[in-house]
Amino acid sequence: MKSLTILGSTGSIGTSTIDVIAAHPGEFRVVALASGRNVERLIEQAQKLAPELVAVEREADARAVASRLPAGTRVLFGRDGLIACARHPESELVVSAIVGATGIEPTYAAVDAGKDVALANKEALVAAGAFVIARAAETGATIVPVDSEHNAIHQCLRGERADEIRRLWLTASGGPFLNWSREAMAAATPEAALRHPTWVMGHKVTIDSATLMNKGLEVIEARWLFGVGADRIRVVVHPGSVVHSLVEFVDGSFKAQLGKTDMRHPIQYALMYPRRRPSALKPLDLVAASPLTFAAPDAERFPCLGLAYDALACGGAAPAVLNAANEVAVAAFLERRAGFLDIPAAIRAALTRHSEAPADTLADILAADRLARKTAADVLASGVQS
Amino acid sequence: MKSLTILGSTGSIGTSTIDVIAAHPGEFRVVALASGRNVERLIEQAQKLAPELVAVEREADARAVASRLPAGTRVLFGRDGLIACARHPESELVVSAIVGATGIEPTYAAVDAGKDVALANKEALVAAGAFVIARAAETGATIVPVDSEHNAIHQCLRGERADEIRRLWLTASGGPFLNWSREAMAAATPEAALRHPTWVMGHKVTIDSATLMNKGLEVIEARWLFGVGADRIRVVVHPGSVVHSLVEFVDGSFKAQLGKTDMRHPIQYALMYPRRRPSALKPLDLVAASPLTFAAPDAERFPCLGLAYDALACGGAAPAVLNAANEVAVAAFLERRAGFLDIPAAIRAALTRHSEAPADTLADILAADRLARKTAADVLASGVQS
Repeated sequence: MKSLTILGSTGSIGTSTIDVIAAHPGEFRVVALASGRNVERLIEQAQKLAPELVAVEREADARAVASRLPAGTRVLFGRDGLIACARHPESELVVSAIVGATGIEPTYAAVDAGKDVALANKEALVAAGAFVIARAAETGATIVPVDSEHNAIHQCLRGERADEIRRLWLTASGGPFLNWSREAMAAATPEAALRHPTWVMGHKVTIDSATLMNKGLEVIEARWLFGVGADRIRVVVHPGSVVHSLVEFVDGSFKAQLGKTDMRHPIQYALMYPRRRPSALKPLDLVAASPLTFAAPDAERFPCLGLAYDALACGGAAPAVLNAANEVAVAAFLERRAGFLDIPAAIRAALTRHSEAPADTLADILAADRLARKTAADVLASGVQS
Repeated sequence: MKSLTILGSTGSIGTSTIDVIAAHPGEFRVVALASGRNVERLIEQAQKLAPELVAVEREADARAVASRLPAGTRVLFGRDGLIACARHPESELVVSAIVGATGIEPTYAAVDAGKDVALANKEALVAAGAFVIARAAETGATIVPVDSEHNAIHQCLRGERADEIRRLWLTASGGPFLNWSREAMAAATPEAALRHPTWVMGHKVTIDSATLMNKGLEVIEARWLFGVGADRIRVVVHPGSVVHSLVEFVDGSFKAQLGKTDMRHPIQYALMYPRRRPSALKPLDLVAASPLTFAAPDAERFPCLGLAYDALACGGAAPAVLNAANEVAVAAFLERRAGFLDIPAAIRAALTRHSEAPADTLADILAADRLARKTAADVLASGVQS
């Protein structure tokens, strides 16, 4: 029985993780659950799983929740609560599924404590990849990505050598605006942007998928996860989302991982790794999924992808700045305080101002993150020129 | 430097093997070459590679060749010549690339002598898989398949466990008659059948590709190579031949290997295994290869596929009988002594008569092969009812 912590238990990946655990009774014991403000769902989860520890975002929620938890479940809150969950001494595997920069510190804490990590939080690697990967190498923590693209690459690299990789190919569905004109995109509503053609995901990730920033962040993640330079990481548009990503080797051979667009698949893979266990989920039907198409991404209509490559090339704090400005801009777009094309404009402004911020420590990275948020918010409030 | 023997050096796979060796100077030393009757090409190859031993089919050729070989190259002939090449004491790896049942004994001899085998000959596994695989397990010989489909599966299984395979999916181009009516197929000429849409291969294999017997033989090979039952080996038609085959795992994940339709890729893989070395061959362009389509095979128009599953289910000598009758029927078709649909008819007749032949030893298998050849020839000579 594997003991685990779920950070972000009430979100999309967190609830799917609990589905996978329920489908494999006797395989897992959940020792800690951390969530944000969805307190009702957290209580339900705690009643079912009886963890040793739960964490919520706000102190008031912690007080309100305390009496409704099973006997033997403690409750903490805020940053300290997250970190306590991540470092819980009985936990062997931490599912890092908080969306956004909030996930950086607890992910680092898990790795620092030598826990294996099933990584769904993008920001820990995007903003702080150098620190997380270096620390994992020191503590022996194994990171298995949950994101379908990196999970696919992880599967393709089993039994292979890193120095025999020629290129990584991340597939992109292209999102809902794949064939929209720039003019139509400028006027796009949150409702239209949330209509993802293939994957059901949280709001933030779905908007990132519409701007292709999702793919940009994944390029940065891939650089850290697999130790491959940006010049050897490519993006290819594959609207069916059947091929989850590919690896091209030095001998010209490509390996791909394919499957249904159901996040329970990569979650199960990451939970069970290195074993594979039977899944009752409906299998992929190759004939029904046919034809599979591939196309080059349109850099002009999707400038966020290029911004991510720029930030990665710049290095240091730039990826953290890119990510923070993007979070702020996406939130503003979802709240109708910004247009769809204001998202890259706000990111560009933040990158221009803060790319050179210090990046010698994790604290530097978090400071750059805060600066970038402020700049992006100011730029959006004053009306960006997109 | 790896020392190797090439059995079938003047054929399609043999010459491509020599191309790969030439593209990687200093990596390989060829110690033995065996060919059939293409004596002029063998002499050229021997002059370039200066092997210690060559073998030809006929004694007269051996005598004629002797004076035109480099100093230090011996020549042998016939079955003994093939076996001496396969067992050459200095050879570490045997490329088994003879087409047809002639390849069975030397392949077994190589495995018996503990040599690693890059296996392109299908018949050794189709007819004598149980013997070859059992002996390889005893001697520690590693068999790496060269056939693009099995090579793809071999790549997909690196770092994976055999007991975590759900199904193997062999892709089939569908051959030149993919969309022909049964009536048109009945009247098909050798020229039409040799016009393969995606692969350049020898004549025998190209005709097998037109009948789908190629895929049937591959199902039988896969059963032995990967230890997976016939009920878990599927065929899917993929006319582009970009995806060379797939593995479906118990957790619902699929892995595929993709590449150009150039046999030098899988040959290089098998020669270099377990390492991958850079290849200068033009890489696959995913966008140009798009779209990739998949369809179910048509069992009615391609009865050879079903005959192969039947032979595998029957076991014993049946696959050897299937293979031998097919060889005879394909030769008759190529020489215009039989129609295209006489091929499955002749195989069916041979299977009906000899499926129950003894199969306790390799000699039994070779005897069943001879019986089946005779029956198929008789049936074809007397005019089959197809």
